[in-house]
Amino acid sequence: MEQFRMCELEFKGEALTKDWARIDLTAELSCGDVTQKVKGFYAGDGVYKVRFLPEVSGEWRYRVTGCITAEGTVAVAPAGKESRGLVRAEEYHFRSQDGRLFYPFGTTIYALMHQEDELVKTTFESLREAPFNKVRFCVFPKSYDYNHNEPPVFAFEKNEDGSWDVNRPCIAFWDRLDAVIKGLESMDIQGDLILFHSYDRWGFAKMSQEENLIYLDYLMRRVSAMPNLWWSLANEYDLMLQNISLTDWEEIECFVADHDPYHHLLSNHNCFKVWDYSRPNVTHVSIQTKMLTRVSEWRKKYKKPVIVDECCYEGTVQRFWGSISGREMTNRFWRVVTTGGYCTHGETFMDWENEILWWARGGKLKGESPKRIAFLRDIVESLPGPIEPVDPMISSLVNATPEEREEMMKNAPEQFAGFINAMLRLGDELKMFASVEFEYQGRCGEDAYLTFYDLRTCEFDEMMLPEDKTYRIELIDTWEMTRETLVEKASGKTQIRLPAREGLAVLATRID
Amino acid sequence: MEQFRMCELEFKGEALTKDWARIDLTAELSCGDVTQKVKGFYAGDGVYKVRFLPEVSGEWRYRVTGCITAEGTVAVAPAGKESRGLVRAEEYHFRSQDGRLFYPFGTTIYALMHQEDELVKTTFESLREAPFNKVRFCVFPKSYDYNHNEPPVFAFEKNEDGSWDVNRPCIAFWDRLDAVIKGLESMDIQGDLILFHSYDRWGFAKMSQEENLIYLDYLMRRVSAMPNLWWSLANEYDLMLQNISLTDWEEIECFVADHDPYHHLLSNHNCFKVWDYSRPNVTHVSIQTKMLTRVSEWRKKYKKPVIVDECCYEGTVQRFWGSISGREMTNRFWRVVTTGGYCTHGETFMDWENEILWWARGGKLKGESPKRIAFLRDIVESLPGPIEPVDPMISSLVNATPEEREEMMKNAPEQFAGFINAMLRLGDELKMFASVEFEYQGRCGEDAYLTFYDLRTCEFDEMMLPEDKTYRIELIDTWEMTRETLVEKASGKTQIRLPAREGLAVLATRID
Repeated sequence: MEQFRMCELEFKGEALTKDWARIDLTAELSCGDVTQKVKGFYAGDGVYKVRFLPEVSGEWRYRVTGCITAEGTVAVAPAGKESRGLVRAEEYHFRSQDGRLFYPFGTTIYALMHQEDELVKTTFESLREAPFNKVRFCVFPKSYDYNHNEPPVFAFEKNEDGSWDVNRPCIAFWDRLDAVIKGLESMDIQGDLILFHSYDRWGFAKMSQEENLIYLDYLMRRVSAMPNLWWSLANEYDLMLQNISLTDWEEIECFVADHDPYHHLLSNHNCFKVWDYSRPNVTHVSIQTKMLTRVSEWRKKYKKPVIVDECCYEGTVQRFWGSISGREMTNRFWRVVTTGGYCTHGETFMDWENEILWWARGGKLKGESPKRIAFLRDIVESLPGPIEPVDPMISSLVNATPEEREEMMKNAPEQFAGFINAMLRLGDELKMFASVEFEYQGRCGEDAYLTFYDLRTCEFDEMMLPEDKTYRIELIDTWEMTRETLVEKASGKTQIRLPAREGLAVLATRID
Repeated sequence: MEQFRMCELEFKGEALTKDWARIDLTAELSCGDVTQKVKGFYAGDGVYKVRFLPEVSGEWRYRVTGCITAEGTVAVAPAGKESRGLVRAEEYHFRSQDGRLFYPFGTTIYALMHQEDELVKTTFESLREAPFNKVRFCVFPKSYDYNHNEPPVFAFEKNEDGSWDVNRPCIAFWDRLDAVIKGLESMDIQGDLILFHSYDRWGFAKMSQEENLIYLDYLMRRVSAMPNLWWSLANEYDLMLQNISLTDWEEIECFVADHDPYHHLLSNHNCFKVWDYSRPNVTHVSIQTKMLTRVSEWRKKYKKPVIVDECCYEGTVQRFWGSISGREMTNRFWRVVTTGGYCTHGETFMDWENEILWWARGGKLKGESPKRIAFLRDIVESLPGPIEPVDPMISSLVNATPEEREEMMKNAPEQFAGFINAMLRLGDELKMFASVEFEYQGRCGEDAYLTFYDLRTCEFDEMMLPEDKTYRIELIDTWEMTRETLVEKASGKTQIRLPAREGLAVLATRID
């Protein structure tokens, strides 16, 4: 057993045949000053398990009570080099328990675990080569365009009338979920586990709230000790409001938070209206949006990290959400990342023969964006720190209070004041206007400045660097994946020449 | 003299040396039932002119009074084939007096007339080969980035103290303006004449309102009889509000409308906040915007034709407004045109040696978009009628009244109703949301359906054509400028295969 890895205690007991979702089984664990209280679960065939996640190494004592009684100790070795522990939100970014910053570069495979073994294996082989360190996937199977196959197993046993019996979780299903999460962990990938969604033909989207909570109770007992898990309450929670009211959603959010001894990252994902990310249980923004100019606004509003967890997928299907080019997917990553957010990939290449689309079922990656996302990830991970957005003037104006606006006016040169005045006449339209008059710029304090030129085909630009520091300025071609030095040593106002094509970025890194 | 061409009566009189902007010179003209009353102007060297535009052919009688007294007749021949007469707004589109629909495909050469003759000549040669039938250009010279040259002549003579004397228009300047407008007319190009703008170092942007009106008085006398003129009160009126208040602007608008016997098209152009296009004098929307999803909304709001008269320029300069690719410029045209609007081009290729950028000074076109715009213009002009937008569902929802929304809900299938409900939860954000969840579709009644796929790289789609009519479906590559038949005969719901790349359009034209 090892620090930051899930530990499992196994006991033999009575084989259960009626209800086994919410058995009476509790463990108290301690190591030095650290104590934990967790619930155990029934794992089938008379096997009972208690799982816990040791956040410190050393000798852990446990005392199990309830339908099993046991006590003892386990030796937990210090974390290996690859174990990062839980990922935590830290202001606008993420950091693992081992102290490393974690920059999420996610992908989406909704029905990952509902495929035949062979396909899951292929998916894992693809992930091993891919740049993604987070996968969004669902507990429940998906029924939607290009998602018509039956899953090999379901989450619950059935009643005689064909309805699901949430009190009898299907052990084979949950073993499968374990295996998928552990498989991701072995590749250092976070599982962004989606607990509910509406694309359903089996009835999982229409369970009663009581059933929802029984299901979650068993889920938390089983998987919450896994280090690489995030909770995504839903994919598009707002499409389920007929069945799960806003109050029910809040109850679900609190239930998950209360039953998770480790406080995994937790968020909720929208189709239209975003979840209220200011709620205390919510650790980060997980937003579906194409309004990629608003990352900085949401950071300011919620004071949490922002992940654009859906912004269309690279592919060729009919719908607008699944038919952007690899180039556009790459651009969207750059837009989000250079303004201090994080972005999530998906792939929907039409597969006329097998209907195996990455975004739903996994398989092989076909797109042009993954290697560009890898290139971006390398750059981000080599920066001196996480990226903070540099807002264009008009966006600053949108987000400013009336007092701050007056201040901006007072300090502006005459011609500028005229501009600000004219902008303010836009009133309610100002925000929409700012969304199209936008430039993508970020910085790491005064250590690095990163501009993404997006569709702009400039032949030159001017950088305003601090006068008293020295920088190397590099030209980045985000599509060709090249970096070349433009200026060896630059300070203050610096002219740069650019090759007048789309998809360029410029990075100034401090070298003194 | 010819119908739909400016006619000019010339008289000799006293040479004026003091004021000659607002001389007492009026002409009453008639031909059958048609009568006109126009003002004449002083043309220098003791020459007085009266200009009028005969909208009918036949024998015209004139009676001139004031500082010149004269009467007589002139024979006006019927219009030649190329004379279209004035272009008028007709609901959401434009039609010339000769009965032909006029689809504006404009370009921008702000300081066209303030260049040396050689450059103006080159510009005209370029225009002769270009697809543009409207040019936006300014009366006053421009002082801005890449516009530093002095113009050959100015609009007024100077006072001894160096200030402009609007009462003494500089005849050489106004002759030059005449020549430029006539030059455009000879190529069947509309002159969208910009009366004021803020990019000025000579003082024209800071004249008093009294001076503004004297200037306009002389201008109207001289050029309003020219058939190919449109009035654009300003380029970016809202950047001049420190000097020309909103009330002054309204006075200018009314003055121009009142002093124009022919009711040329009239609009005003914004930097940020749009002019109130619902005002009765305004004939069409002339908007600067990058929000190209909103054409249909503005059509509905103002019930007038919509021209996006600035949406960034194809080029390579530093600023975002002058650094889009030819591909993006082409896309912007398609976005606007397929949703029932019209779009205006501009070109800002950096010219390190001469600072001659098309958008300001003219010269030669260098971009990749003009020939694609020509391709689009050919398609538009070959359609059975002007394009009306087909709004995506979410946009329809934005523009609907509460009653219409309820109606939409009532008529929607169950699953759809859930979507609408979820969308409506967006509240104020709905409009902004609709601007990114957009599809570009237009139609000519039931005679043609045009979809622009923009960035979508679909491999297939489904068209919903009327069941009882037959169509040929063509695939258009807007960049490669190719058209190929996808389906020879189609009715009702029709599957189409697409080549999965950006910049595609599909046109279904009725063939039965």
